Amino acid sequence: MTSPGALIDLNADLGESFGRWRLGDDDALLEVVTSANVACGFHAGDPATLVATCRAAARRGVAVGAQVGYRDLAGFGRRFVDVSPDDLFADVLYQLGALDGIARSCGTAVTYVKPHGALYNTVVHHEEQAAAVVAAVAAHPGRLPLLGLPGSVLLERAAGAGLRAVPEAFADRGYTAEGTLVPRSLPGALVEDPRQVADRVVRLVTEGVVRSVDGVDVPVGAASVCLHGDTPGAAASARAVRAALEAAGVTLRAFARP
Amino acid sequence: MTSPGALIDLNADLGESFGRWRLGDDDALLEVVTSANVACGFHAGDPATLVATCRAAARRGVAVGAQVGYRDLAGFGRRFVDVSPDDLFADVLYQLGALDGIARSCGTAVTYVKPHGALYNTVVHHEEQAAAVVAAVAAHPGRLPLLGLPGSVLLERAAGAGLRAVPEAFADRGYTAEGTLVPRSLPGALVEDPRQVADRVVRLVTEGVVRSVDGVDVPVGAASVCLHGDTPGAAASARAVRAALEAAGVTLRAFARP
Amino acid sequence: MTSPGALIDLNADLGESFGRWRLGDDDALLEVVTSANVACGFHAGDPATLVATCRAAARRGVAVGAQVGYRDLAGFGRRFVDVSPDDLFADVLYQLGALDGIARSCGTAVTYVKPHGALYNTVVHHEEQAAAVVAAVAAHPGRLPLLGLPGSVLLERAAGAGLRAVPEAFADRGYTAEGTLVPRSLPGALVEDPRQVADRVVRLVTEGVVRSVDGVDVPVGAASVCLHGDTPGAAASARAVRAALEAAGVTLRAFARP
Amino acid sequence: MTSPGALIDLNADLGESFGRWRLGDDDALLEVVTSANVACGFHAGDPATLVATCRAAARRGVAVGAQVGYRDLAGFGRRFVDVSPDDLFADVLYQLGALDGIARSCGTAVTYVKPHGALYNTVVHHEEQAAAVVAAVAAHPGRLPLLGLPGSVLLERAAGAGLRAVPEAFADRGYTAEGTLVPRSLPGALVEDPRQVADRVVRLVTEGVVRSVDGVDVPVGAASVCLHGDTPGAAASARAVRAALEAAGVTLRAFARP
Repeated sequence: MTSPGALIDLNADLGESFGRWRLGDDDALLEVVTSANVACGFHAGDPATLVATCRAAARRGVAVGAQVGYRDLAGFGRRFVDVSPDDLFADVLYQLGALDGIARSCGTAVTYVKPHGALYNTVVHHEEQAAAVVAAVAAHPGRLPLLGLPGSVLLERAAGAGLRAVPEAFADRGYTAEGTLVPRSLPGALVEDPRQVADRVVRLVTEGVVRSVDGVDVPVGAASVCLHGDTPGAAASARAVRAALEAAGVTLRAFARP
Repeated sequence: MTSPGALIDLNADLGESFGRWRLGDDDALLEVVTSANVACGFHAGDPATLVATCRAAARRGVAVGAQVGYRDLAGFGRRFVDVSPDDLFADVLYQLGALDGIARSCGTAVTYVKPHGALYNTVVHHEEQAAAVVAAVAAHPGRLPLLGLPGSVLLERAAGAGLRAVPEAFADRGYTAEGTLVPRSLPGALVEDPRQVADRVVRLVTEGVVRSVDGVDVPVGAASVCLHGDTPGAAASARAVRAALEAAGVTLRAFARP
Repeated sequence: MTSPGALIDLNADLGESFGRWRLGDDDALLEVVTSANVACGFHAGDPATLVATCRAAARRGVAVGAQVGYRDLAGFGRRFVDVSPDDLFADVLYQLGALDGIARSCGTAVTYVKPHGALYNTVVHHEEQAAAVVAAVAAHPGRLPLLGLPGSVLLERAAGAGLRAVPEAFADRGYTAEGTLVPRSLPGALVEDPRQVADRVVRLVTEGVVRSVDGVDVPVGAASVCLHGDTPGAAASARAVRAALEAAGVTLRAFARP
Repeated sequence: MTSPGALIDLNADLGESFGRWRLGDDDALLEVVTSANVACGFHAGDPATLVATCRAAARRGVAVGAQVGYRDLAGFGRRFVDVSPDDLFADVLYQLGALDGIARSCGTAVTYVKPHGALYNTVVHHEEQAAAVVAAVAAHPGRLPLLGLPGSVLLERAAGAGLRAVPEAFADRGYTAEGTLVPRSLPGALVEDPRQVADRVVRLVTEGVVRSVDGVDVPVGAASVCLHGDTPGAAASARAVRAALEAAGVTLRAFARP
């Protein structure tokens, strides 16, 4: 069953190179996604990389989001850091402003915020850190939307602060019968076949459901679908998802545009 | 001879603490200056320090400038780095945006840019680095004024790019008969007596001249006077300058306000 | 009751400056302590500071310990970081080797290892991180002693690995009737009067007991006493402790010498 | 003309990954080289990478050298930094000790020092920085050999300090009739054909000459030949050099072994 009129955003992480070190196939992904979660220098992304990424995003009409993370280059932002709320508040504002200044100099602007890595996972449940991220975004004059996990403390608090809370789904992750992600340590956590990934995303967008690991359809509400960019075959898989959505008559559009 | 109606800005470096390490008497200096050159995280200034500094500046009506520097915490931005123009362009935009995002969340905004330390000295004469700094500030939508040394390549290029170029004088530095600074390696480079510093600043502002080390008065044009903040007695000396200017009927006002 | 022949080591954190930023009164503390926990660059301590600190320690015959911490300059190593055992193992070896290379070039050598800040607190109970620290120290050819909290997982595992486990007491901390530290959030956590601090340390060393917050004497076994160096009055308090110990006939000697 | 009994060392840069970012084909190069210039964390190389690299080098009997660089991760050590001699002295000791501690825990040891990138180029002519590097290596108890450019101030000063000065040649660089490298901005700077590279290295080792860009043979004395590791085809080219040398009867051996 196709759903004429269905609308979705596709997001992926970009700008994660650092100096001499290259990471991800940003050019290929920018042809696919409608929103780019651009690193802000704390977990990845030197300033020259951010300039190049924002220019490319602006040229292609892809929305730029600030992918804010822990101050941990050596750990790529993937390690929980027990940062105080005051420091995290300031760290988020710093990163958001840095990327926004670059984006504006490139003819675009940051239109949303998405936490990265361990911070993403932490603000699903950690009240103080979620509150600090939301407070920072709320203090910024842009009062930008926050992109995160449905049901997370982050999105709850964002909505409570009058910010737009944007839930996302994951193209290549398995779901439980309760609609939560299958933990990475369990079988079924990852869907690897690109064809199957594409089919699942089409159902998610047009029917609002995914088939869980238990074999039942569960409703998943999402305004954006996250594609992974730094695995082998990521670009090909991302292109397959986009092609399948377009074939199903789905309109691809950023949820927040400059 | 006093000059009723004379007007000057007083600037000093602030926000140069980093994490556990405190530097400078920011509270005292914020009572004196009209413009705060706030560190942006590359040579000094962790985000929480920048938030605290911008809040305090906003509360006191002190203008906030972005003190951009080389990416060199260990060297406090005091070592020349042969950074490429493209990287420097991006580094300046990153720092400027980071501080501006924080400033705006605190109810103020960055209103000018001043290079720090070795970068300040380098862009006096280094064509490529001066051009890169100017290009970054010109690319930023704020098109902010640049504060620097009179006669520097930086200010020449800023003017050439249609930006406001703001020359500054130094309260405690000796001048040659040509109106340039006495090199730090020579006698007379520093004026240490607070009373003498204050007198010199008053003459500079009201008469447009300073007495050179050779004993002749030389004309020095400056829209701002730089006070040092991280030496012992800095706050007392800064207060003396301000008091002397006020006693001479000079109006103290930031050259660029939010 | 004095105890002729009693012996103790006094340790304190040193070398915690970084570049332009100064911290602690290292010169004063080096006159008091027998062991210096020298920062290794991850939470504090630029290489030039480490050279200066090791030279001064060598000159005074003070033992040098490697104070290893999380890779977190902005947080001064005071924030828990969920670093993997493999990364922590490598981080400890890196820091230990860096300081030891410097110490050896200054005519001394690192003779023990002490975790810093949040890592110190974490390895009291965190099995994986404690095991990683111990594994690193055991892999190093020096097979150095580990200094830490009595009863900690760190010291248990160090002993299990055939390393010398050195328990320390805290000069200015309150103890419970069970011999554990009074949590910082509770009354009695800190003993602030220098005279009282000195008296407690003398009893600890000569009688092996401290008076708990409940008013009973509890046995506390310690081969070293930790003095704090970065609070106002720290140096004076440290001197008072040393003087009181010497007056009581206690010999002050590093537990591990080069 | 083959030269039975000829002996050479092959060196390449390794361990230049950092956290999430991978760089170079270390496994392939370790099969070819006799000496590994291992990054020490200042321009590249997180501790876990250094552990993995030292383990692999130890397993294969490849000598480990400390590739010391400027403290500049974002610039990969390729930008000149005007660091003071005292700071550079300490930075070199820190890096050397860090890698040596790791190497020793892996059953090997650092046996030589080679400056990296911009520092390598700077110490060809910069008296103060060359002296600082040499002073650091001379202060270290290992008094290790220094690997560098023939005729450089670094090697002159190393010899003057009683250290072994080891000159190297470059497998894929063009030489002038005076025996110096053709500047990268000029034609003939790089030799790209792997077959030609291999032939040139064989002549260099067995006859002591290279054919210059002017077509004349010039004598080049080298105890080691540097292979590049981070370009496409680097591993294949390195293997071709080794195979050609072995076919010519040359013995491959590290110039300094643990």
